[in-house]
Amino acid sequence: MILEIATLDIQPGQEEAFEAGVRQATPLFMRSKGCHGLTLQRVIEQPSRYLLIVRWETLEDHTVHFRGSQEFQDWRGLVGPYFASAPAVVHVQAVVETQ
Amino acid sequence: MILEIATLDIQPGQEEAFEAGVRQATPLFMRSKGCHGLTLQRVIEQPSRYLLIVRWETLEDHTVHFRGSQEFQDWRGLVGPYFASAPAVVHVQAVVETQ
Repeated sequence: MILEIATLDIQPGQEEAFEAGVRQATPLFMRSKGCHGLTLQRVIEQPSRYLLIVRWETLEDHTVHFRGSQEFQDWRGLVGPYFASAPAVVHVQAVVETQ
Repeated sequence: MILEIATLDIQPGQEEAFEAGVRQATPLFMRSKGCHGLTLQRVIEQPSRYLLIVRWETLEDHTVHFRGSQEFQDWRGLVGPYFASAPAVVHVQAVVETQ
């Protein structure tokens, strides 16, 4: 299991519309190959910034399958208009974990 | 519940020692007020970078209680020597969550 962590800066004033778009988009992720769920996290120190954290079975489930799918196009259609800049994406893997 | 997300850049070559330090330090977090667990995540695209994600009951459990405690001093003693630069820390709160 890996995590995709996308940092998303939203146009100030568009936060509510963006959050609604993410809620509407969750089924697009949940029906994608290897997706085990997601959370959208709002940054307390910078409320126009969010972290989208998506659990994927493998790196390629995100970078190849999802990004090449119609679901990705639909996702970007729902939330892309609210982005203030291009998302910054990294992938991480747990090396230490408490229960 | 909030998440502390600390971005930790480690001196190249010191990654294993750093990971061992985090393993040794987990009880320091787990016995701290309001700590519900942690994961250390390694960034696939940049393997000297890690995200430490700690679940806290409240923001103050981290920023006031933990940072003012002996446990914080001990944590920094165990892993601080491996840092390549000062950690960047944000706190986030879930606004959308799938099960």
